[in-house]
Amino acid sequence: MTEQQKEIYRQVTKWFHEARNRILEGRARGLDVQNKTSRLDLVTNIDKEIECFFREKINENFSDSAILGEEGNKADFKSSKGLFWVIDPIDGTMNFVKQAANFASMIAIYQDQKPLLGFIYDVIHDRLYWGGPGIGVYCNKEQLPAPKNIQLKDGLLGVNGPMMLTNYRNLQEVIRKSAGARIYGSAGIEFIHVLTGQCVGYLSHLRPWDYAAGSILAESLNLSVKTIDGKLLDVVSSEDVLVATKNAYIEISALMSAK
Amino acid sequence: MTEQQKEIYRQVTKWFHEARNRILEGRARGLDVQNKTSRLDLVTNIDKEIECFFREKINENFSDSAILGEEGNKADFKSSKGLFWVIDPIDGTMNFVKQAANFASMIAIYQDQKPLLGFIYDVIHDRLYWGGPGIGVYCNKEQLPAPKNIQLKDGLLGVNGPMMLTNYRNLQEVIRKSAGARIYGSAGIEFIHVLTGQCVGYLSHLRPWDYAAGSILAESLNLSVKTIDGKLLDVVSSEDVLVATKNAYIEISALMSAK
Repeated sequence: MTEQQKEIYRQVTKWFHEARNRILEGRARGLDVQNKTSRLDLVTNIDKEIECFFREKINENFSDSAILGEEGNKADFKSSKGLFWVIDPIDGTMNFVKQAANFASMIAIYQDQKPLLGFIYDVIHDRLYWGGPGIGVYCNKEQLPAPKNIQLKDGLLGVNGPMMLTNYRNLQEVIRKSAGARIYGSAGIEFIHVLTGQCVGYLSHLRPWDYAAGSILAESLNLSVKTIDGKLLDVVSSEDVLVATKNAYIEISALMSAK
Repeated sequence: MTEQQKEIYRQVTKWFHEARNRILEGRARGLDVQNKTSRLDLVTNIDKEIECFFREKINENFSDSAILGEEGNKADFKSSKGLFWVIDPIDGTMNFVKQAANFASMIAIYQDQKPLLGFIYDVIHDRLYWGGPGIGVYCNKEQLPAPKNIQLKDGLLGVNGPMMLTNYRNLQEVIRKSAGARIYGSAGIEFIHVLTGQCVGYLSHLRPWDYAAGSILAESLNLSVKTIDGKLLDVVSSEDVLVATKNAYIEISALMSAK
């Protein structure tokens, strides 16, 4: 790790642990839940509070940073110079509200538009998945091996529920060729399953804060992470994102481009 | 608890902890995986070994018991007198093989065909959900509150993946009326989500060893657990089982009987 990466790592891990206490205490006190675009698109007072907390910490410790966050101002990645932070205070807000589990907190950091570090924090299990180019990926202090390059038929596939329901772009055939579908309801938690080799891939329509950290980590483990059609992710657009082993990526992309 | 329940509880918790060590060590040594009825229906050497282990312990400590197990002899519940044990050494074998997580070990005990105790053990997290009539349900030492009697629209619904794919009996409409579908791939793990109120219900085609323990626990928490058509579970038949809050049970059963 460079000195800069070390300093960011040192700071961000501290922030996550403080955020964890705030999240657990805040949820125990009771949530204020609001709908955003639909009855299934939720935001809580805790989402907003934790995003503010991350923004304050970034500005305090890394001035001249630009920040793109789910619940606040959205800096433009394409014109960014220096440090660019993408934050998702609570990914899987529905699970957070209904289950008090199976949600994640995520931060991705770029330097001059190049990936520097990614963090996915499984808050309930207190497991921080982090890493970046040239570093590899760790769960807390333990390095993850790169997942085996298995085929679609040999792995479980994480999917987005509504896409599965509507057979979006032939997804149901993809699922039939896999060892089975799983739906966990949080992009962060789904990315973790692919990083650890517990799923062969994950497919969903995602916004930049949903995929930024996960894509930095996935690339560091030699997984494929692009749009279904093979376009690189640009940290600007909402996309149909597919992260998978290299073999499964090719198979899934072909099956979903055919229709 | 009666003295008999206490003695069974004392024994069974010991067996589960010994089984946990065997499962984790056995998996670390490497699995022998075989197909049963299809490429997606798996059994491993560990499933068989743990079932043997449970059978030995039952016979050693509770002679004159009858045993129905996934991987071995299947005693007939309807003619049973005295203690009747239903065992599923590893529920969610696909998850066990592919994920080394998200699987459960389950034991249900009946006395003269009446429910006595149910146990679902989340092996990886070392959480034992247990209880029975007049006892309530506990996670390890902590008593679970009965889940709130919420409606379908307010909860996440655990479902069987293939049933969701094929829109079995109108299931896709049921999902659309819920707060979303989840697929975890193990009946035991899905039952736990309903017992803890993390899901409003769970629906799948299940065999007696998949539903016996969960149904004893669900009834002890005042949840509805029957076939989709409202038939009582008989510990003999494979059934389309629906466990849910009382309100959601009525809604789901009506939606799935309509077509």
